[in-house]
Amino acid sequence: MTPPIAIDPAAIERYVRELAEHGACGQTGVCRPAYSPAWVAAQEQVGAWCAGAGLTTWQDAAGSVWGRLAGSEPGPVVATGSHIDSVVPGGRYDGALGVIAGILAVRALRERHGPPRRSIDVVSFAQEENSRFPRSGLWSSRSITGLARPEELDTIRTYEGETLRAVLRSVGLDPGEMLSARRDDIAAFIELHVEQGPVLEEAGLAVGIVDAITGSSTFNVTITGRADHAGGCPMDLRRDPMTAVVPIVDGVLRTARAMGRPAVTTVGRMLVEPNLSGIVPEHVFFTVNARHPFLDGYDELRARHTALLEQVRAAHPELGIDWTVGAGPPTPCDPGMVRLLEDTAREQGIATLTMPSGGGHDTQVMAGICPSVMIFVQSRDGRSHTPDEYTAPEHAAAGVQLLAAALHRLAY
Amino acid sequence: MTPPIAIDPAAIERYVRELAEHGACGQTGVCRPAYSPAWVAAQEQVGAWCAGAGLTTWQDAAGSVWGRLAGSEPGPVVATGSHIDSVVPGGRYDGALGVIAGILAVRALRERHGPPRRSIDVVSFAQEENSRFPRSGLWSSRSITGLARPEELDTIRTYEGETLRAVLRSVGLDPGEMLSARRDDIAAFIELHVEQGPVLEEAGLAVGIVDAITGSSTFNVTITGRADHAGGCPMDLRRDPMTAVVPIVDGVLRTARAMGRPAVTTVGRMLVEPNLSGIVPEHVFFTVNARHPFLDGYDELRARHTALLEQVRAAHPELGIDWTVGAGPPTPCDPGMVRLLEDTAREQGIATLTMPSGGGHDTQVMAGICPSVMIFVQSRDGRSHTPDEYTAPEHAAAGVQLLAAALHRLAY
Repeated sequence: MTPPIAIDPAAIERYVRELAEHGACGQTGVCRPAYSPAWVAAQEQVGAWCAGAGLTTWQDAAGSVWGRLAGSEPGPVVATGSHIDSVVPGGRYDGALGVIAGILAVRALRERHGPPRRSIDVVSFAQEENSRFPRSGLWSSRSITGLARPEELDTIRTYEGETLRAVLRSVGLDPGEMLSARRDDIAAFIELHVEQGPVLEEAGLAVGIVDAITGSSTFNVTITGRADHAGGCPMDLRRDPMTAVVPIVDGVLRTARAMGRPAVTTVGRMLVEPNLSGIVPEHVFFTVNARHPFLDGYDELRARHTALLEQVRAAHPELGIDWTVGAGPPTPCDPGMVRLLEDTAREQGIATLTMPSGGGHDTQVMAGICPSVMIFVQSRDGRSHTPDEYTAPEHAAAGVQLLAAALHRLAY
Repeated sequence: MTPPIAIDPAAIERYVRELAEHGACGQTGVCRPAYSPAWVAAQEQVGAWCAGAGLTTWQDAAGSVWGRLAGSEPGPVVATGSHIDSVVPGGRYDGALGVIAGILAVRALRERHGPPRRSIDVVSFAQEENSRFPRSGLWSSRSITGLARPEELDTIRTYEGETLRAVLRSVGLDPGEMLSARRDDIAAFIELHVEQGPVLEEAGLAVGIVDAITGSSTFNVTITGRADHAGGCPMDLRRDPMTAVVPIVDGVLRTARAMGRPAVTTVGRMLVEPNLSGIVPEHVFFTVNARHPFLDGYDELRARHTALLEQVRAAHPELGIDWTVGAGPPTPCDPGMVRLLEDTAREQGIATLTMPSGGGHDTQVMAGICPSVMIFVQSRDGRSHTPDEYTAPEHAAAGVQLLAAALHRLAY
């Protein structure tokens, strides 16, 4: 049994605020897209903290910063970490808290228990969000796990059109070395992250244990009608895309509500052309994002949305209704790792909820090479991807305590 | 009885193409916002054509170009015309055809019948569209009828923020003289315009006679919810504006369809914030534009839309649902002028349909100072406010023939 490992909430808060100075925007916001100057400075800060905690540090070819507390025995390592790149504008906690948690947990273990048997690696991933590269996230974990392909260096581009290859070079990384980022010596991975919803707050708990990471499908729907004058064209002669937008949006939201938790569907993006009050739209484009953490529910949700789209298309021969689907299936967390966290939490006296993650995370990639799991900490009002993000220091400390105790079990 | 007045379709087509060179964009488009360099050149062209047709020409303080065929008797004049400013991008016919029609009709009358008893004025209005000044259209007809107020010179601004006063000065007009544009000597006004819908084409007719100009109300609706993570927040804890957008859009379109022609309602503009596929919207803004050419129907349509908005607001206490309404009531055309056109069309052997106008026009303003009416000509596929606008020369010629014959009745 691992003795209780007290973590100082004030230290967490201090680290969070200090890291947030890199890319600070507004009162509490962070604008730190991957490989930006603010991101470079923040990764240097992470490296300095790792060194200060007695870890050996290095940066891999994808830009991830690693810090190692060397073990007394050879063999695979135990790893923990998260990302410090942000959406624009994002908050101080998403990703960043998991990197800080790793450093503070390992520092606490070293101070109390000395060197571990197995080495413990803390990682600060390079590119988790797709805030700079719209068609890509998770580049650094995909590099670590061998999923990243060299040709992507030229196909992944920023919103402005710059290739990933050029961006990596601009921060002193060598794209030709990308395959060297691959790791095959990681035995287990744990990521601590703020919950991106209000479930823990609703349950009155500080900490959650993630048993599955959501699958996420996005239907990119385009409906094409005919742009008519809003006064000149009678209703019965129109080909108005809005007449098909309504039953689709209505239906997909109803389906997710009817299936109940943890099914969710969101229509978050809509573009109307020409978007004038006096013109019937020619085109309406919108997204239907459907998520479910378990394969059965994920497949059912997708199938019901697809059936509805086909039904509305059949009912509106006067319109062009087309869609593409970007799909990523759910990833179960390792059951053994989930049990290890549940047992450790009980030992440490931390009440937890085992729950799925509704967001995607580097952990879903890491799960491809080793048993992986996540720890969630409560986020006030469930805020996420906004400068409003806030996690109380004592909630964060409970999560870091669980992380440290779990690492102790795995590495000592 | 007025003898048939043959109008050469080829001449119309030649004038249309020549005027479209000013502000030409794309293969068939026209980008000619009011007071732009292209508009200045086009107004000069109109003045030159008027002079060439034997008319005395001048420009008033709002920028309208006038051409007069002087009558043998003193007293009020008969006027015809339309506008040459365009939406961006617009087509060759909207407005322009009515100016060309006036010039060709008066030229034909002068050649066949000599000077009239009453003077006939052809007018090319200055600013009918709101393509440059988003909060204002109809400036020049409002100046002619005394509705334009001097303080508007500083409150009406372009999309870029320039005042109307500065814009008028930039093209050599004197804003201090704006009140001089007022006319109180117009006895009757006829505007020829392309239909902005497919009704004449559906009926197989070249020419329509407008008995009413639509009323138009725009509800600017804002729905505010809460931006949640598309995966992290369960459906039952969301405050998603889309859940209220759906019944409102559905309901207003159903109401207009149920009321039948000539009621129309359009949801043409929608903006979502933050407009990301992975975030539940915080705000959705959209327009509900409701039009009806007769007061009873106009009032009923507005009342039913208002009742629906209130009902959806009551059903969604978790959302903020607010709206403002910009309203312009319908304008009946002068019944005597409608009958005059109907009688004249029969005499000339032109089959017509008496119909309302679904778009707003300078005629609705001119109706405030004199008996006014409009002639519609068929627009292929009902296209309007697009480079796709096209009116067959022979259809246009039938409309110009009716215009000329009506002017003959009124002025000879």
